Amino acid sequence: MSAEIICVGTELLLGDILNTNVQFLAKELASLGIPHYYQSVVGDNLGRLGRVIDLASQRSSILIFTGGLGPTPDDLTTEAIADFFQTPLEEKPEIIQDIAAKFAKRGRKMSPNNHKQALIPIGADILPNPSGTAPGIIWQPRRDLTIFTFPGVPSEMKRMWVETAVPYLKSLGWGKEIIYSRTLRFRGIGESALAEKVAPFFELTNPTVAPYASKGEVRLRVSALASSESGASDLISPIAKQIQEIAGTDYFGADDDTLASVTGKLLLAAGETLSVAESCTGGGLGQMLTSVSGSSEYFLGGVIAYHNRVKMSTLGVKEEDLDQFGAVSEVVAKQMALGVKQRLGSTWALSITGIAGPSGGTETKPVGLVYVGLAGPTERVDSFKYLLGTGRERDTIRYISACNALDRLRRKLLERQRN
Amino acid sequence: MSAEIICVGTELLLGDILNTNVQFLAKELASLGIPHYYQSVVGDNLGRLGRVIDLASQRSSILIFTGGLGPTPDDLTTEAIADFFQTPLEEKPEIIQDIAAKFAKRGRKMSPNNHKQALIPIGADILPNPSGTAPGIIWQPRRDLTIFTFPGVPSEMKRMWVETAVPYLKSLGWGKEIIYSRTLRFRGIGESALAEKVAPFFELTNPTVAPYASKGEVRLRVSALASSESGASDLISPIAKQIQEIAGTDYFGADDDTLASVTGKLLLAAGETLSVAESCTGGGLGQMLTSVSGSSEYFLGGVIAYHNRVKMSTLGVKEEDLDQFGAVSEVVAKQMALGVKQRLGSTWALSITGIAGPSGGTETKPVGLVYVGLAGPTERVDSFKYLLGTGRERDTIRYISACNALDRLRRKLLERQRN
Repeated sequence: MSAEIICVGTELLLGDILNTNVQFLAKELASLGIPHYYQSVVGDNLGRLGRVIDLASQRSSILIFTGGLGPTPDDLTTEAIADFFQTPLEEKPEIIQDIAAKFAKRGRKMSPNNHKQALIPIGADILPNPSGTAPGIIWQPRRDLTIFTFPGVPSEMKRMWVETAVPYLKSLGWGKEIIYSRTLRFRGIGESALAEKVAPFFELTNPTVAPYASKGEVRLRVSALASSESGASDLISPIAKQIQEIAGTDYFGADDDTLASVTGKLLLAAGETLSVAESCTGGGLGQMLTSVSGSSEYFLGGVIAYHNRVKMSTLGVKEEDLDQFGAVSEVVAKQMALGVKQRLGSTWALSITGIAGPSGGTETKPVGLVYVGLAGPTERVDSFKYLLGTGRERDTIRYISACNALDRLRRKLLERQRN
Repeated sequence: MSAEIICVGTELLLGDILNTNVQFLAKELASLGIPHYYQSVVGDNLGRLGRVIDLASQRSSILIFTGGLGPTPDDLTTEAIADFFQTPLEEKPEIIQDIAAKFAKRGRKMSPNNHKQALIPIGADILPNPSGTAPGIIWQPRRDLTIFTFPGVPSEMKRMWVETAVPYLKSLGWGKEIIYSRTLRFRGIGESALAEKVAPFFELTNPTVAPYASKGEVRLRVSALASSESGASDLISPIAKQIQEIAGTDYFGADDDTLASVTGKLLLAAGETLSVAESCTGGGLGQMLTSVSGSSEYFLGGVIAYHNRVKMSTLGVKEEDLDQFGAVSEVVAKQMALGVKQRLGSTWALSITGIAGPSGGTETKPVGLVYVGLAGPTERVDSFKYLLGTGRERDTIRYISACNALDRLRRKLLERQRN
């Protein structure tokens, strides 16, 4: 018994898109304990798709397809599968109804092409797609073979996997021994420095501990093999706790925690509010904060002060300071934070001003120079200077700047908690 | 004649790493005009690796391996290839010398393990690795089959590909005919509706036209085979032009164009400016606009009016309207756009207010209900209502909302241009 992932799409063969679906599915199979020996990619071509199905159905017992479920003539996955198993397709009225309802909900009319998406092999079950038009199938064309099909759009595929495929696989008995991982997330420490501090943990066998770097943070994955999630958790928790203690405030959260969600929780607990003033990030810090559902409890809003005129008119930044120190300066960062705090009446305020590049850098103010301002409940306003380097891309510099700002507030709130 | 990419490594099957190598190689093959129909991933297992080589050597004439060239016992690529073609391995002294020199340079001693990396099949050529210890091979075990092996480390693989493999392939005559693609991008039309309108183009053979959907937009890829980029462009341009004419303003750009960059160009050409007022997107629209380098020429900034108090205090939204119609309403969207336009003194202003979910929806105002406001140089303020559906995730609803807002302004600017 083993699974094989088959990704269908000429765009993958042309290198137009990065195949993130296969990594997601590979991880999921590992966590369910399902052996997985092969991955294949094939284009939108009926003959070659058929040959891949032929081979895969001989060597694997669970076939997971992504892509090729769309409404256009080059979407061939379902047809190829039905062809290979010599099973006619039938139109499912419930799929038509579902697609039509989705179009209606968005105020649009279903196109005749979409009828194609309602065709599935006789005997197959519908694998519902709650977020898009293309449903998949779950089908056992032979006793010893299970086929799943998913659309290529990652968000749709993931939801269908989690909501329908995983429960189905568990009902078949998979997932009894599971690999369960917890990701510990760190900020303000490099991968090698953290690795040195926690080196003895890398020798463990269950759970295992492995580091990996991610944009703007370092992560440690702690993985345990156990018969239940709680069993795995019992193995992971004491190790995670020891690591957290070693890392101190450089540890900020686990799994789905983000700097924004963690900082938000601290604000919520204190009954305090936050506003932001953004120049080079142009709204990215606000977006990060509001990606957390429920952030309206503590996030009031902010000002995107991209143009200097806006810095003056809406934040009260002084013209003479802009002239003397420039928009990217400690003085201006502080005035921005103070200005938005006063204007919006929040407990805390963060500001960001910097040079994201690729142009706009000078000898004294290079690309990557960023100031973060932090105003709080007292008179005091802090500012922090960052040199994020010229090798980085504009959007990376902006992203890291927003993370840095959040991290400053997080540490400030923690510090106060401890005192 | 076609190429197949075979990536070797259990870490790929566990989902520990994202396979970026295969995307790089796929793009490179396309640009050299080398047909490429299959990609395979297999773990560090001699038997399964042998079966993949067996199959690939029957269906493809150029096999490109990545991974499995390291010094440890689970690195099996070279051994598996030699086994399959029943060719003994021989140790190459020049490889030993090269590895030893690299270790010496780093002040380290070569490990006995590394001797394994000097073994290559008799008759194969060394594919030098200037940046790492593991060299690859270039080998023709049969007249009609060429094998390349590369290490899995992306930076080493890429350099070896560019410095040795590409010149070698060109010496075989590849690269005389290249495949060049242009991606046409559309908004405001579904994949199936667009496909219907441009159906006859799908029958073309050079260039070919194929649709694919992406988050918040639809794309058509027009690909031509020609002896030069300009030759390909000559084939693509007339077709692209016809498609653009059919699609009208639903077509917004090609390749790296984004809604933000295209809208920015229109503003720049008109010498006009823009500001934004964001509620549910929390800064995402501003971030999108400022991800374009040079956007400070036309984007002044904005207000993130997440809390109703901020909508009133900084944008002049009327309390009685918030009470009567709610924050997510046409009236409030209009007042937000007008308020930020007046406050920041821009020519145009966009506003967004909506329910991004997952909570906060009601019977009459479901998750996904979004209003976009658009104020311009005249007194007139428009508003647009969207139902983005309950199936979508919070961040997707926010992303599409920001795209919708930009698209409204883009269409408005185009409309004026035409009149």
